[in-house]
Amino acid sequence: MKLVVYLAGEIHSDWRGDLKEEAEAKDLQLEFVGPQTNHQQSDDIGEDIIGKQPGKLYRDDAASDINNLRTQVLMQKADIVIAKFGEEYKQWNTAMDASAATTLNKPLIIIRPESLIHPLKELSNKANVTVENNEQALKVLEYIFA
Amino acid sequence: MKLVVYLAGEIHSDWRGDLKEEAEAKDLQLEFVGPQTNHQQSDDIGEDIIGKQPGKLYRDDAASDINNLRTQVLMQKADIVIAKFGEEYKQWNTAMDASAATTLNKPLIIIRPESLIHPLKELSNKANVTVENNEQALKVLEYIFA
Amino acid sequence: MKLVVYLAGEIHSDWRGDLKEEAEAKDLQLEFVGPQTNHQQSDDIGEDIIGKQPGKLYRDDAASDINNLRTQVLMQKADIVIAKFGEEYKQWNTAMDASAATTLNKPLIIIRPESLIHPLKELSNKANVTVENNEQALKVLEYIFA
Amino acid sequence: MKLVVYLAGEIHSDWRGDLKEEAEAKDLQLEFVGPQTNHQQSDDIGEDIIGKQPGKLYRDDAASDINNLRTQVLMQKADIVIAKFGEEYKQWNTAMDASAATTLNKPLIIIRPESLIHPLKELSNKANVTVENNEQALKVLEYIFA
Amino acid sequence: MKLVVYLAGEIHSDWRGDLKEEAEAKDLQLEFVGPQTNHQQSDDIGEDIIGKQPGKLYRDDAASDINNLRTQVLMQKADIVIAKFGEEYKQWNTAMDASAATTLNKPLIIIRPESLIHPLKELSNKANVTVENNEQALKVLEYIFA
Amino acid sequence: MKLVVYLAGEIHSDWRGDLKEEAEAKDLQLEFVGPQTNHQQSDDIGEDIIGKQPGKLYRDDAASDINNLRTQVLMQKADIVIAKFGEEYKQWNTAMDASAATTLNKPLIIIRPESLIHPLKELSNKANVTVENNEQALKVLEYIFA
Amino acid sequence: MKLVVYLAGEIHSDWRGDLKEEAEAKDLQLEFVGPQTNHQQSDDIGEDIIGKQPGKLYRDDAASDINNLRTQVLMQKADIVIAKFGEEYKQWNTAMDASAATTLNKPLIIIRPESLIHPLKELSNKANVTVENNEQALKVLEYIFA
Amino acid sequence: MKLVVYLAGEIHSDWRGDLKEEAEAKDLQLEFVGPQTNHQQSDDIGEDIIGKQPGKLYRDDAASDINNLRTQVLMQKADIVIAKFGEEYKQWNTAMDASAATTLNKPLIIIRPESLIHPLKELSNKANVTVENNEQALKVLEYIFA
Repeated sequence: MKLVVYLAGEIHSDWRGDLKEEAEAKDLQLEFVGPQTNHQQSDDIGEDIIGKQPGKLYRDDAASDINNLRTQVLMQKADIVIAKFGEEYKQWNTAMDASAATTLNKPLIIIRPESLIHPLKELSNKANVTVENNEQALKVLEYIFA
Repeated sequence: MKLVVYLAGEIHSDWRGDLKEEAEAKDLQLEFVGPQTNHQQSDDIGEDIIGKQPGKLYRDDAASDINNLRTQVLMQKADIVIAKFGEEYKQWNTAMDASAATTLNKPLIIIRPESLIHPLKELSNKANVTVENNEQALKVLEYIFA
Repeated sequence: MKLVVYLAGEIHSDWRGDLKEEAEAKDLQLEFVGPQTNHQQSDDIGEDIIGKQPGKLYRDDAASDINNLRTQVLMQKADIVIAKFGEEYKQWNTAMDASAATTLNKPLIIIRPESLIHPLKELSNKANVTVENNEQALKVLEYIFA
Repeated sequence: MKLVVYLAGEIHSDWRGDLKEEAEAKDLQLEFVGPQTNHQQSDDIGEDIIGKQPGKLYRDDAASDINNLRTQVLMQKADIVIAKFGEEYKQWNTAMDASAATTLNKPLIIIRPESLIHPLKELSNKANVTVENNEQALKVLEYIFA
Repeated sequence: MKLVVYLAGEIHSDWRGDLKEEAEAKDLQLEFVGPQTNHQQSDDIGEDIIGKQPGKLYRDDAASDINNLRTQVLMQKADIVIAKFGEEYKQWNTAMDASAATTLNKPLIIIRPESLIHPLKELSNKANVTVENNEQALKVLEYIFA
Repeated sequence: MKLVVYLAGEIHSDWRGDLKEEAEAKDLQLEFVGPQTNHQQSDDIGEDIIGKQPGKLYRDDAASDINNLRTQVLMQKADIVIAKFGEEYKQWNTAMDASAATTLNKPLIIIRPESLIHPLKELSNKANVTVENNEQALKVLEYIFA
Repeated sequence: MKLVVYLAGEIHSDWRGDLKEEAEAKDLQLEFVGPQTNHQQSDDIGEDIIGKQPGKLYRDDAASDINNLRTQVLMQKADIVIAKFGEEYKQWNTAMDASAATTLNKPLIIIRPESLIHPLKELSNKANVTVENNEQALKVLEYIFA
Repeated sequence: MKLVVYLAGEIHSDWRGDLKEEAEAKDLQLEFVGPQTNHQQSDDIGEDIIGKQPGKLYRDDAASDINNLRTQVLMQKADIVIAKFGEEYKQWNTAMDASAATTLNKPLIIIRPESLIHPLKELSNKANVTVENNEQALKVLEYIFA
């Protein structure tokens, strides 16, 4: 049995690559999918495809059309969603993906530093499991096959 | 026909009271519900009911249990959800409520200042309508009865 | 038992007013809801609320945001949907509403002139009942209470 | 990960064949499905299978029975739906398929010429992405795998 | 709390009137709905509304369009479905309604004579309760309020 | 793309074997599943597994437990359901399976002789397609791949 | 806004009456529903309605048919479910009701003594809130209106 | 056609291993999944991953987070659920899994000793089939392929 894991959130470290490698090293039957991690490409994708927009609002909306389509396609394929929050940025799209996942009954793991306990408390409470680092998240995945 | 509107988000201004008054002035058949707006009570409610917890994480989780139950009960009653984002705080519970609403096919209106266009772009894109102030949100509600 | 009927489609004749009057004359417990029937207001509503847009595409999209929110709110309240097609215009929003209704398991009645049998054949086939005029549609509604 | 794409709409150009070729050239893991594109066969299929019908209405309804079954089977298999609108015909079945797709939470891409912005505005607003040509639609699909 | 009960099946005895009277005598908060019980009207309703059809198959299909719409509207309002089978006729529409009810998670009571145990065994097995007469069915309803 | 077809109904002719052979001859990617077609085994299965029951009602109910489990497992796997009605027996389990299928949005084909038009009219009306023989049903399946 | 609360579980103390009184004293808009609390009647109801059964298994199954129908009707009406576990009995029907509630997205409050923490840990974890006594449960309900 | 079977309940005998062996001996296309059967590991898993907790309640809750995630992932993959009750322990997690399964329309088989007929009567009544031992459960699975 192979499981698909959607990795939402932080795109400024290579945690996805790390998880993938460790999962392979442990020979877990996992396929990882996730958002576009090239931040620039993710911001440009709307204008890249449908052309120059008349301002930032429209440019952002055009990019979001396509980023949200991507997320919807891949999250619907996912058996499990992991959402990673970091110290930087508003990360509302990460909160959005996490909330959508749990509302769709996708099992949800949140990774967040201790410093974010309070602002993430309601979302953490809705998640199945909240951990503080990638290693812990991987252990949760590993336990499914144990 | 009476509609129930869940007002998610900002609890540091009295925008809920304002909306309610204006809706009454216009004689719109709307019932407004929403989260606990007393921030202190919302943070204390877990320990108030189940007693002292062994640390901040547990205290926050106990409060979130009850805040999330409240939101779930009232949002399931709602015909429309309005989520208001402000300049302060992480507001991940607002993003969570907005995303849950749209995932449950509840029509969603987002109110946010222009400064938040970029960080809210994916969530805005999923909402039905995004506006910048309460008056505009009320006009959208009013239009339903026009 | 009171039933709510959403009246999708044609906004250039007063068929909604006619249906309402006839239903009242027959004392049927029906509440009729529907789209904004003032065409100009329906096209302007986006700019009226969120302000001038940078072109027709954006103006239309802003209006559709709000028109679609209205339809979503009211159709979710409806027990029955009636979609009326006429000879003029593309009427793709009418087809959209009719298809959404039947996909959501809302009982659907289509009213269309004989001349539209062929182009509407797949949608007609999905509807519960297809008739050619308002009187027939009202008779179907009346039969529910017979 | 292989994705199934349902190609609704226009059957008078070979855009499906083109998309398929380009997707193969780019080695995208996509399987394309869609309606019967032989217009005559699509109109005849009812009488071909259940025999001569007593008039156009019945002939069209018999064909639609079978065309709608086909669409239902294949769209339920689809991960993504693309609906292409052209300048000709009423294309209400295309609008029906697009609306059914989005109501079923299938990610939806609309292809339409600039001339159809206004009549398609509500449906476009419900779609994830609207583009003007096949190349753009393919780029959106490509981005999912990027 | 008032409950709506859909009474499917047999239309050749006045069991609906009897149930209603007994429920009123016991002051149970029940509202009964059901199919058209005038058999002739139920068979004629298609042609009555959309006009003469070119043969029995089409006449029956036109009537079924409208009878099925009625059932769909009223069953969606129902909290409980009772399906009564008698000795006569094929009663496939009764089996259809009973199966639709239980598939939609509507609590289902079947009334059938002892002689029909074997042919109804799968459907009985899916129902919540199977009884042999109206009095027993009413006792089940009464128990909900006890 | 391979499709799974559940073949409900008649178990006294070898129509399932025939369909399977013809589908293979035409190289259609179809996998057929269905109920236990050994009538005696289907009636005995309850007592065979859980032991002698205290009367016909209990014996039938025990068998139905297991037959309904089988149907539920296999129908949930099915992309299409075909229900075949014959002249003999009450066939209420066939009507039950057909109604469950269409309520679950499984595309439904009914096969019935002309003599059963009237008693099957409501169920036929809910099905996607109604035909009179196996060859026609196979042509409908074939058309999906055409 | 009035909320319906289903009170599952313990039937050997009058906690339902207590809750009701306290809720009235606080003027909370709550309607409480629940299972048959007369244990004897709950065990007898099957034979009372359909007659003497041939053994304990059949007697219990007949009673459960009717008790489960009652629970299904009333729980579908409920906005919130409270499940109370005590020290006595297996209480698997209470666990069943609690699990059904949360699976149906009904907000769930569990009341259980401290001694049952370990055996109830998975179910508690799925509930929104777990408390130890009626007063705490009522405070949670009260908070919804605060 | 391969079926996935989730084996809930008893973890103190090797009934899962036995079932698996017998299924292989009969060459049934079944894949068995289930909970962590090492009781100690199942109790420790929370602290093993997220670290020492401040008391039994928190330790149990941390373990349940991860055990419930595992169950949710694997049960969503399952075509059939078997829940085995024994004489020992409260087994409320087994009742929870069984109830969740049937609420999600997963076909459910219960295995329980005769001594548990009365306390399990409501849950048994909701299950598709109740048997007394593994051999009978396997016969039910075998019958699906017969």
